[in-house]
Amino acid sequence: MTSTFVLGGARSGKSRHGQALVEGVPGRLVYIATGQALDDEMEARIARHREDRGPRWSTLEAPMELVEAIGKAAGEADAVLVDCLTLWLSNLMLAEAALQPRFDALCRAIADCPKPLVLVANEVGMGIVPETSLGRRFRDEAGRLNQQVAAVVDHAVLVAAGLPLVLK
Amino acid sequence: MTSTFVLGGARSGKSRHGQALVEGVPGRLVYIATGQALDDEMEARIARHREDRGPRWSTLEAPMELVEAIGKAAGEADAVLVDCLTLWLSNLMLAEAALQPRFDALCRAIADCPKPLVLVANEVGMGIVPETSLGRRFRDEAGRLNQQVAAVVDHAVLVAAGLPLVLK
Amino acid sequence: MTSTFVLGGARSGKSRHGQALVEGVPGRLVYIATGQALDDEMEARIARHREDRGPRWSTLEAPMELVEAIGKAAGEADAVLVDCLTLWLSNLMLAEAALQPRFDALCRAIADCPKPLVLVANEVGMGIVPETSLGRRFRDEAGRLNQQVAAVVDHAVLVAAGLPLVLK
Repeated sequence: MTSTFVLGGARSGKSRHGQALVEGVPGRLVYIATGQALDDEMEARIARHREDRGPRWSTLEAPMELVEAIGKAAGEADAVLVDCLTLWLSNLMLAEAALQPRFDALCRAIADCPKPLVLVANEVGMGIVPETSLGRRFRDEAGRLNQQVAAVVDHAVLVAAGLPLVLK
Repeated sequence: MTSTFVLGGARSGKSRHGQALVEGVPGRLVYIATGQALDDEMEARIARHREDRGPRWSTLEAPMELVEAIGKAAGEADAVLVDCLTLWLSNLMLAEAALQPRFDALCRAIADCPKPLVLVANEVGMGIVPETSLGRRFRDEAGRLNQQVAAVVDHAVLVAAGLPLVLK
Repeated sequence: MTSTFVLGGARSGKSRHGQALVEGVPGRLVYIATGQALDDEMEARIARHREDRGPRWSTLEAPMELVEAIGKAAGEADAVLVDCLTLWLSNLMLAEAALQPRFDALCRAIADCPKPLVLVANEVGMGIVPETSLGRRFRDEAGRLNQQVAAVVDHAVLVAAGLPLVLK
């Protein structure tokens, strides 16, 4: 089924754009959240977002086990949104997980997904070279992940100021 | 009248692009400068830019009172350039002004402007997460402002290396 | 002959895109490397990349004398890749070379190049303002260089996640 990659900067409107794409599909929708509520404020914000999405949506939390979550979501819903891949990468790096096998498994899951799938990610490579080696490594891995995902999806856009530029 | 949002990175040629758009309108032109001369060097640079723009242009300084400046400029000129919204946001944040009411008033002023209006802003969200909480907050507010403005204008472009990509 | 400017973020796939463009030309190809092997790891990486490019390619190292390298490469090959301008700028700044005469000479070399020429560079201006004055100066000079080069080439693209957006 159709897969779409939505790439954008921080506060670029990429999540809203991805959500709107998924909401174009009738039926039940799953939101796969890779972010984790690390404090009360974040938990409240996540709960508010969940309410805002409305009754067609259910939520799966997948800070690390994203491939399994995509499989589960595709089994029970009509369309799936992953928001976002960059937070997933950040969680994997914090856990010192091997990245390339996860990237490969994700790409297979995208290709095999039987339902419309939209994946959101951050563009993080258009500033100057980060000061810290962790910052540089994160930027490099995020760029590699974005390239791999963009290569396997059917459509890709770069969002700026809420508006999409068609990459593919 | 036609409004255009010109978004771009630092030294992307966004100001020059915005200026060229406004100069396509015959008659008197107003340049609304949100930057402030904080030292002699900056003052000299601002004076040089003013001379470079030539005799069709007059300048209004509006570090904070941008909505009023747009109203005044639209009353006395045939086209208006605002350069730039990101510096205006920075001035508002330094003054600890409430931002959302200002964003809303700006969007109304854009919609109501009786003359061609071009607004320039920085894309600041495509690097890695800023180290400081002020940096993160600035990036978030700049992204929100850019999205809101892009939603109300007639046209929007993303400028890179002096060349525009059409967003809208 | 046709010149193309390939602009992109870190790990955006810009080098691979530039390489693919040059490989569309039959015959002998020259890769002009502006990066310098400063340690064993980097040397090994450069050697690996060189092998990956295959037998049609030869390599010229030009950390600073880029204009001379373009002239030499155009004399002996059927197409030329410069990877990348941003590292060249970085080398010039470290050596405290005068930049504007070098930028001007590069632009003349691009206009005069008798063979297809592809030049790769980094977009570094879409993050927040850098903390250090060196970072800000580097970002400003990189933006100026990108604008000048984009103005003289026949074609320009912005690469994100491995995919090109046509600037020109």
